[in-house]
Amino acid sequence: MEQWLKDDERLDYLLAEDLRIIQSPSVFSFSLDAVLLSRFAYVPIKRGKIVDLCTGNGAIPLFLSARTEAKIIGIELQERLADMAKRSVQYNKLEEQITILKADVKGISTQIGSEKYDVVTCNPPYFPAHEASEKNLKEHLAIARHEIHLTLDEAVSSASELLKQGGKAAFVHRPGRLLDIVTSMRNNRLEPKRIRFVYPKEGKEANTLLIEGIKDGKPDLKILPPLYVYGENGEYTEEVKEMLYGKE
Amino acid sequence: MEQWLKDDERLDYLLAEDLRIIQSPSVFSFSLDAVLLSRFAYVPIKRGKIVDLCTGNGAIPLFLSARTEAKIIGIELQERLADMAKRSVQYNKLEEQITILKADVKGISTQIGSEKYDVVTCNPPYFPAHEASEKNLKEHLAIARHEIHLTLDEAVSSASELLKQGGKAAFVHRPGRLLDIVTSMRNNRLEPKRIRFVYPKEGKEANTLLIEGIKDGKPDLKILPPLYVYGENGEYTEEVKEMLYGKE
Repeated sequence: MEQWLKDDERLDYLLAEDLRIIQSPSVFSFSLDAVLLSRFAYVPIKRGKIVDLCTGNGAIPLFLSARTEAKIIGIELQERLADMAKRSVQYNKLEEQITILKADVKGISTQIGSEKYDVVTCNPPYFPAHEASEKNLKEHLAIARHEIHLTLDEAVSSASELLKQGGKAAFVHRPGRLLDIVTSMRNNRLEPKRIRFVYPKEGKEANTLLIEGIKDGKPDLKILPPLYVYGENGEYTEEVKEMLYGKE
Repeated sequence: MEQWLKDDERLDYLLAEDLRIIQSPSVFSFSLDAVLLSRFAYVPIKRGKIVDLCTGNGAIPLFLSARTEAKIIGIELQERLADMAKRSVQYNKLEEQITILKADVKGISTQIGSEKYDVVTCNPPYFPAHEASEKNLKEHLAIARHEIHLTLDEAVSSASELLKQGGKAAFVHRPGRLLDIVTSMRNNRLEPKRIRFVYPKEGKEANTLLIEGIKDGKPDLKILPPLYVYGENGEYTEEVKEMLYGKE
């Protein structure tokens, strides 16, 4: 086991997928948002090419690998995170399907090819860059969570460049950025088609936004049923439990 | 009673407000959307000036009159509908509070004054004009439901012209037009602040959108909890029942 892990890293289970993932509380751990995005995104079952931007420790490629046989490329700017992701891919013996690249999302299509992918997923940094310094976060977490090296518009633009016509881009973000993301998507030829709002529980405002657009698609937006994370009893709802732990 | 009614008109109850409204199945009857918008919009309790655009038979001014002492002007293009609205106002002895004007929403601020209102509500025609001819609707209904004499952008523009800085505009529309309405609002200085999606029942896609913006407001959009119209049993949910019938 120790050959796989560095520092305070640990090998966590992805129960629903029966996979393992290398995480570190001080460097990076995936969030529920990665789980939600992986389930929200449409993916081809048998063939195709998928890119996950801002892949972090590779959680989304790992989740998706359980639902598709398509090839998946994960792009991560931070060396340390990309290294964790690569080791997780190796540990799960998924090197044939998943490739992790340590690279900048900005301009990534010049490196891996433009207009040739079927699906792009992206769980981008959520918070404005200026908030990062105030919070004095550790650098790895700050870069992953704040728009320091990548703005929302840059992420959307890169996604669009990678996609074929008719290809799909799926993002997870905060509802407060809804207007920014739909504006950016339309400016980048990604027509928003499906939105799902995620609510922490009934009666609360949404705290997460899932959105999918089709490159050069026709306007026809659907607002999907809400997704609740916690039930009245404070436990995960059945829908979220199934995402995390699989079907009973 | 007959002095109040023409043709196939009837005098319906607004139970929650303890008011009556003149309706006609062949000319115009208000929809649930008018009820939802009336409850969604923030209104001042004691004073202020409100305009309801596309007021139809005056349902929204009547609903609002039960929640505010502010003066309310209802604008309706169609003579026949404006006449129904005026008679309903008289029947309920609300002439002091509600004024119905037979006028075009386009350019209405030149007639009733610009930048002087606190709240504007609007339940505009939903459907593209080109669909009206195909459906061969009766003219009154066609004009009320289709963008024949008023586009969404024109409605938003008129609302903005009427509002003071900091004033609020609330609209009801179809979720498929979300991107159009938020784009139009931002182009017209109305910053979207609150959105509530209305779902026919659990597990279905939203079929109605409630949105409120503040003139020259700061970006800070909230997605409110979903509103369900029907419960599992096929009856109105408690929330909708209370809107329609009042508190038990």
